Amino acid sequence: MRTRRQAQTGERRGRRPGRGDTRGAILDAARALFATQGFERSTIRAIANSAHVDPALVLHYFGTKENVFLSAVELPFEPEAVLPTILAGDIESLGERIARFVVGLLEEDAARSRFLAVVRAAASEPAAALLLRGLIERRIRDPIAQALGGDDAELRASLVGSQIIGLAMARYVVRVEPLASLPSESLVARIAPTLQRYLAEPFALPE
Amino acid sequence: MRTRRQAQTGERRGRRPGRGDTRGAILDAARALFATQGFERSTIRAIANSAHVDPALVLHYFGTKENVFLSAVELPFEPEAVLPTILAGDIESLGERIARFVVGLLEEDAARSRFLAVVRAAASEPAAALLLRGLIERRIRDPIAQALGGDDAELRASLVGSQIIGLAMARYVVRVEPLASLPSESLVARIAPTLQRYLAEPFALPE
Repeated sequence: MRTRRQAQTGERRGRRPGRGDTRGAILDAARALFATQGFERSTIRAIANSAHVDPALVLHYFGTKENVFLSAVELPFEPEAVLPTILAGDIESLGERIARFVVGLLEEDAARSRFLAVVRAAASEPAAALLLRGLIERRIRDPIAQALGGDDAELRASLVGSQIIGLAMARYVVRVEPLASLPSESLVARIAPTLQRYLAEPFALPE
Repeated sequence: MRTRRQAQTGERRGRRPGRGDTRGAILDAARALFATQGFERSTIRAIANSAHVDPALVLHYFGTKENVFLSAVELPFEPEAVLPTILAGDIESLGERIARFVVGLLEEDAARSRFLAVVRAAASEPAAALLLRGLIERRIRDPIAQALGGDDAELRASLVGSQIIGLAMARYVVRVEPLASLPSESLVARIAPTLQRYLAEPFALPE
């Protein structure tokens, strides 16, 4: 925990003595600034001021503002921690496993507010959307595509992503009824076949 | 067109003489203010100031700030103009008609930026999201549900909505590849069966 005293000390010019949470303090400040000021207006200097550190320290830890942003983004879940388990099972029930995970995840307040923050960032500024695109492709789309294999694996993974983003928007942001109050298990039953079709069914044949 | 002179005249206290575009000028000002200041901070007084009219005139035309917001929202399309035609055809190809309409619509810059504005509003403030929810349910979900009929028609319509919102987010906002650059016809072929399933297929049977 940082005390007010320590925060004030940090306002002095020059690199702060190596406290373990300096990087974290910069990210906290950056997150708050990106959320209120947007990506363009949140300069390295503004981030440094807000974190009570020297701008050189921000550059030392992150190099560029883009990297601060990419490190500050909190996805609703940690793909590296979650995806290997979900992707490890059989392909026939992958759609259901993904649907169940997503629906469960978005029942959590913290996950929902992280999702909202990502949507706000993407919808507000093209520069932020571009960075988010790279992040989502690398950390979510690619591992799924790799597990699927095949020529159109990336497209399949991104179609799955489209249904999940839309579900989160409709159920938890706009809260369209009766989707918003549908019990989790009913929702999984409705969404899973869509995900499964995107993941594994041949597209050439009309259904 | 309003001249600077007219705008200045409008700044005087009291109701302005009945110019046809006063209501439109208030809505233009409100739209700009909601977009930059958000719903909560855009007061009736701020909207009036920005439109160079008396606050009483805003109340005269709209009654409440909520009504200003609902009148100012520009959906990416006019549901009342578009839905009757789309819903008039046979149910077996309704999913494809909706997919084709949405994909075509979102190729237009104006429709995309209206979609973005709606997403920003919904993701920024719960009060705005609540108003949007009512608007979307009344103007989009209900006509579709009415055309479908049956106990779960509203749920089916909102599931269709979830895939469409997600498609628009993934393809046009985050621009995840290869979804973002997929040719329209290929996209319609991938999305239409999902919409069709939500619209018309029985849910009890696993697919």
